[in-house]
Amino acid sequence: MPQISVRGEEMPASPIRKLVPLSDKAKEKGITVYHLNIGQPDLPTPKVALDALHKIDRTVLEYSPSDGYRSYREKLTKYYASYNINVTADDIIITTGGSEAVLFAFLACLNPGDEIIVPEPAYANYMAFAISAGAVIKAIPSTIEEGFALPSVDKFEALITEKTRGILICNPNNPTGYLYTRNEMNQIRDIVKKYDLYLFSDEVYREFIYTGSPYISACHLKGIEENVVLIDSVSKRYSECGIRIGALITKNKKLRASVMKFCQARLSPPLIGQLIAEASLEASQEYMRDIYDEYVERRKFLIDGLNRIPGVYSPIPMGAFYTVARLPVDNADTFCAWCLSDFSYEGQTVFMAPASGFYSSPGLGRDEVRIAYVLKKEDLQKALFVLQKALEAYPGRTI
Amino acid sequence: MPQISVRGEEMPASPIRKLVPLSDKAKEKGITVYHLNIGQPDLPTPKVALDALHKIDRTVLEYSPSDGYRSYREKLTKYYASYNINVTADDIIITTGGSEAVLFAFLACLNPGDEIIVPEPAYANYMAFAISAGAVIKAIPSTIEEGFALPSVDKFEALITEKTRGILICNPNNPTGYLYTRNEMNQIRDIVKKYDLYLFSDEVYREFIYTGSPYISACHLKGIEENVVLIDSVSKRYSECGIRIGALITKNKKLRASVMKFCQARLSPPLIGQLIAEASLEASQEYMRDIYDEYVERRKFLIDGLNRIPGVYSPIPMGAFYTVARLPVDNADTFCAWCLSDFSYEGQTVFMAPASGFYSSPGLGRDEVRIAYVLKKEDLQKALFVLQKALEAYPGRTI
Repeated sequence: MPQISVRGEEMPASPIRKLVPLSDKAKEKGITVYHLNIGQPDLPTPKVALDALHKIDRTVLEYSPSDGYRSYREKLTKYYASYNINVTADDIIITTGGSEAVLFAFLACLNPGDEIIVPEPAYANYMAFAISAGAVIKAIPSTIEEGFALPSVDKFEALITEKTRGILICNPNNPTGYLYTRNEMNQIRDIVKKYDLYLFSDEVYREFIYTGSPYISACHLKGIEENVVLIDSVSKRYSECGIRIGALITKNKKLRASVMKFCQARLSPPLIGQLIAEASLEASQEYMRDIYDEYVERRKFLIDGLNRIPGVYSPIPMGAFYTVARLPVDNADTFCAWCLSDFSYEGQTVFMAPASGFYSSPGLGRDEVRIAYVLKKEDLQKALFVLQKALEAYPGRTI
Repeated sequence: MPQISVRGEEMPASPIRKLVPLSDKAKEKGITVYHLNIGQPDLPTPKVALDALHKIDRTVLEYSPSDGYRSYREKLTKYYASYNINVTADDIIITTGGSEAVLFAFLACLNPGDEIIVPEPAYANYMAFAISAGAVIKAIPSTIEEGFALPSVDKFEALITEKTRGILICNPNNPTGYLYTRNEMNQIRDIVKKYDLYLFSDEVYREFIYTGSPYISACHLKGIEENVVLIDSVSKRYSECGIRIGALITKNKKLRASVMKFCQARLSPPLIGQLIAEASLEASQEYMRDIYDEYVERRKFLIDGLNRIPGVYSPIPMGAFYTVARLPVDNADTFCAWCLSDFSYEGQTVFMAPASGFYSSPGLGRDEVRIAYVLKKEDLQKALFVLQKALEAYPGRTI
């Protein structure tokens, strides 16, 4: 039997998916599992998007252009302009989800062995895309004690070598909910400029900023226009994860030409997803406001609730719909598995994502979990209560 | 400005896409362009599929499982059984088009520097996916004189080195329409077995076999079950290129586990495409027959017409909806560009794909073009007439 490739062996198995069989078993036993583990919004897709889906009037479901429909890209420029991101339709390449945008950015920018610096905890799949491209992620830990703020500039500079080609940020952040300040973004800009690095900036949660703090996009930074690669997706903002529509945006013409060759090889992004995403741009202010208000309330409710449980600590996330919380347990991996396999309270349990999967430095995040607030408030309330009961019963508790 | 990656530079620009601006310009001048260059069927998507699209009754367009919906994979097993391909739902991983299946197969099976042997002319994007994975394609030329039959076994063996990890075939073939015989498939099996190679087999055109010759799938070959990776797609068989649904099928459990890690990283294949593809399995016999009959007629019409033009020769393709024809021209790249930029006959011209883009051995295919019969007969007739006139007028004609 032929061998698997080295990168095939090295690819990390998702830390969440490892727990799915345990969750399935719990459900088989009739236990209600509260899913705090996923980034799949429960909120509805805009009606205007679903209407567009039903009205599709084509007899052939044909390829779309490799960089996506021009009409959609034209409309997107107005959407971005509303965030003071000034791009033309030519600057935008439509991708199959934000995932493909990250993969193609890495394939087009990074040689095997090249390094990118990523503040951690970080979205686990960045690592998978780096391995796919043969690139190496150099992680800089941010800490729960500092609310997951950007690590200091000297920590970045300490990691810069001959092979460093870029910095990757997620802002607002998955998994921490942290929003980089203007000062922090300026620090990133200065490093990017000084060392002529790429700045990969995943900003798919820009709709979900709760603190009144300004959203500083990588595209707002002056003097590094040719270095910035914006990663985007409609998945979260319109509850449309399944349509697989994202975007890679850059002012760097040479890079775009290279990315386009990867796009042409895979022929086209999903046709129907694009029609839906284009229609979604017409989602009403009321829809966007309702979604936003719902997350604001859930966030307050969740964070207050977490911090009321003895020994639990969560910083207050400024954006996205996640928080990373510290639990009074010996090992969050073990605890999360135990909640699914050995625990239930009145027929209920919780499914959380162990934070260790979001760190690449070994040993970090050992007592942390990522909790997504993609459940309605009544369920969040029950989940918090069950979590408290689980922490009281867990043999490896530390208080 | 940071550099593009080496593979980003090396990625081939599509030989067809380079001509698109010329075609656009011709259209701006009011010239009718007959598109013989593309693999986009003009025939309708099944009604049952479009009905399923309109009936989608979901309020959240959410992620689907990373390996695709189980219900779809279960139904696919019956489809494959009808071709004597015996697989279980677990053997099937749903991908974002056949393209992603090729990319993930390469990423999971091949290390950077590993080699795969591919009979050429071959689908141009295999090269792009190989470059993405850092793998090297070693081409074995097949020739128009031999009707693009499989090169002899000793030519394969001459290319096998320490780094050879697989053989890739496309059957029925894009671009030649060739269908491998049982004898040829047995020869491939023997090499695969002898050297313990992967056999990547792209069989997306299995519906379109016109000669009564048997379809021998790589999955029919005994003794190499763990080596075979079947690449599939619904794009061609249901005229659904835009929904981006394909599949990677293998009995090799270890390989599947590795491919699944790449699938999990990109979260999920398109949701709506899967619903459409699942419904398409219910397309009527009548629909499938009509499509088939239409291609049979077009094929006869096209090949007869081509071989009647002085100096033109096309073998008779046994499957798919392409042929590679030899033209009496000095350089088919130049000729194809000239047809778009400098020629028209009664306000019409033709857009063909120069065959050089399907060869990686330099100089091959210099006087060949790929012609797709995805136009209705009346348009094919006009296109053939215009081609004849173009060949008479072209300054670089060789007869």
